[in-house]
Amino acid sequence: MIPVKTIEWIGGLDGVARLIDQTLLPGELRYLDVRDVETMWEAIRMLRVRGAPAIGIAAAMGMVLAVRDCAPDRRDAFLAAVERAAAYLNSARPTAVNLSWATRRMQSLVIRHPDLSVEALKWRMLDEAKAMVDEDNAVCQAIGRLGEPLIRDGDSWLTHCNAGGLATAQWGTATAPIYMAHAAGKRIHVFADETRPLLQGARLTAWELQQVGVPVTVITDNMAATVMAQGKVQGVIVGTDRMAANGDFANKIGTLGVAVLAKEFGVPFYVAAPTSSIDMRLASGEAIPIEERRPEEVSEGFGRRTVPPGVRIYNPAFDVTPHRYVTAIITERGIVHPPFHEGLRALFERLPSSQP
Amino acid sequence: MIPVKTIEWIGGLDGVARLIDQTLLPGELRYLDVRDVETMWEAIRMLRVRGAPAIGIAAAMGMVLAVRDCAPDRRDAFLAAVERAAAYLNSARPTAVNLSWATRRMQSLVIRHPDLSVEALKWRMLDEAKAMVDEDNAVCQAIGRLGEPLIRDGDSWLTHCNAGGLATAQWGTATAPIYMAHAAGKRIHVFADETRPLLQGARLTAWELQQVGVPVTVITDNMAATVMAQGKVQGVIVGTDRMAANGDFANKIGTLGVAVLAKEFGVPFYVAAPTSSIDMRLASGEAIPIEERRPEEVSEGFGRRTVPPGVRIYNPAFDVTPHRYVTAIITERGIVHPPFHEGLRALFERLPSSQP
Repeated sequence: MIPVKTIEWIGGLDGVARLIDQTLLPGELRYLDVRDVETMWEAIRMLRVRGAPAIGIAAAMGMVLAVRDCAPDRRDAFLAAVERAAAYLNSARPTAVNLSWATRRMQSLVIRHPDLSVEALKWRMLDEAKAMVDEDNAVCQAIGRLGEPLIRDGDSWLTHCNAGGLATAQWGTATAPIYMAHAAGKRIHVFADETRPLLQGARLTAWELQQVGVPVTVITDNMAATVMAQGKVQGVIVGTDRMAANGDFANKIGTLGVAVLAKEFGVPFYVAAPTSSIDMRLASGEAIPIEERRPEEVSEGFGRRTVPPGVRIYNPAFDVTPHRYVTAIITERGIVHPPFHEGLRALFERLPSSQP
Repeated sequence: MIPVKTIEWIGGLDGVARLIDQTLLPGELRYLDVRDVETMWEAIRMLRVRGAPAIGIAAAMGMVLAVRDCAPDRRDAFLAAVERAAAYLNSARPTAVNLSWATRRMQSLVIRHPDLSVEALKWRMLDEAKAMVDEDNAVCQAIGRLGEPLIRDGDSWLTHCNAGGLATAQWGTATAPIYMAHAAGKRIHVFADETRPLLQGARLTAWELQQVGVPVTVITDNMAATVMAQGKVQGVIVGTDRMAANGDFANKIGTLGVAVLAKEFGVPFYVAAPTSSIDMRLASGEAIPIEERRPEEVSEGFGRRTVPPGVRIYNPAFDVTPHRYVTAIITERGIVHPPFHEGLRALFERLPSSQP
């Protein structure tokens, strides 16, 4: 079985954007057929669709929905609608980089083609949105193919948070090697850290692995040390929100702790990183800002207050893991081993000649 | 301010056992005045009173409640009531070692005094229960006095779970040095790991420190690595459920991870261990069995399902931390430094001459 599709476009210009409403997981698998840009804005805002690549695709599809009913003979109105839709969609989650990257890509497409009719531009926008799905699948599948040989038959691997199919169009980054190993007939079992405060590991990673039939065991974050000490884990794989040129990387809070434990207990620690997540202008992870989120995620994360009123709460959403804890970085263009600075630079230098 | 009393006896033989109903924390501070053994059994069973030392004291007071209305002229009926009460209270939480230790101590008191009248024995039982409170306070305060100098003015210390006053009569083990430092006028701030799955850190440790005015910040367990990496933690102190002769010790799940992180980030790691928790017959921690608890604590810990049905869950309640991660062990009879095997043996050898 292949992973569930998180988001796809069904049909032609009069079609729908179909996405899994992730707010209902793990209780219910319900697809949302989005037919207008307001519904897409709401879906992004309310985290019905989440994860950087998936948000980008959702925004691109939102752009198509926003302009498909524009009059074919009113070019000015169409161009204004494109601009309005981009600004509107960007406002759904202002801090999501992939959101503005995707809407800019659609705006740029329109600007680059003054020769095309409004109707032709609508179709080109739809093609572009679909191309983004294909590109995402190609990148994730390449990471999967490259990472798969690292997994041995009978292994248990541990992952943190959700860098899975639900964060991308379908395959995920950290989960892609696992799906490929499973598809290749290897027996692979996964420990999923529940990932406080928002429980993406328990709610999302466990769910999507279960859908495909990969055996998965959920643990609370503080049990990772025990399963490693007991020799139950043969590899760790995580995603990244942003990696620096030296291999330091930001990821969901708790990743640093898992990395330290993996080193201590001799477990290989891999980062699945599309080259689009690697920022070669950043010399090290020290420059990556850590977003602090509202304390209620910790104190009222489950609809019931679990911290006394008046007690302070610290809630950093990410941490930065220094590259010394990383065994290897799995990109769609190759696996990079230490020294990472040299390896990553070589990867980017040969980019033009190594396009997939 | 001194710590809140978790459990105490108010009045004479016709008095009440007054305890904090911990199931209502942190939302509400409500004292429960227990007047009969059935209510005490329920309080232990439902975790209204929890923590090994506090449970022992509750059981001892439960014994008094069970027999205080026995007819003074019916010695056989009284002795039968003592036996019945012990068996009954032991059944409240069958795995709690302190429970049966406390009821045996009361039974043994009665057996040792065939000369005393029923009425005199009732009073002796009450004195014994009160003595257990005093002993607990003496042990915890001694740990506090010995540990306090390790805390410097302006320090932030991290603790895991609740080895606090709420687990004992008043001072706690891991919290005692913190309370003493605070009382001595040192500025001390505490990071409390929330401690999944049952959140004793968020619900109980944060609450009791707040009551006394010790500044406390709650973090999710997976944030401990970040606060240590940021240099925000100058010491870690935890309690123990059982320590082996070489210093290996069992404590709430997640302790091992904190210990590994403390070593990695150069933070001293202390264990507050009453000698009653040190089992010199156990050569190492490998022999300590790890209790696995029901999966619903993880999947439905907050009244809402957070793990997909059918997904496996691993829920060990404790982990074992090897002694190599421990900087020092703070007992009521002295601080033990490595090599722990020698230090602990010396501590127990000089026990007779060093009674407090």
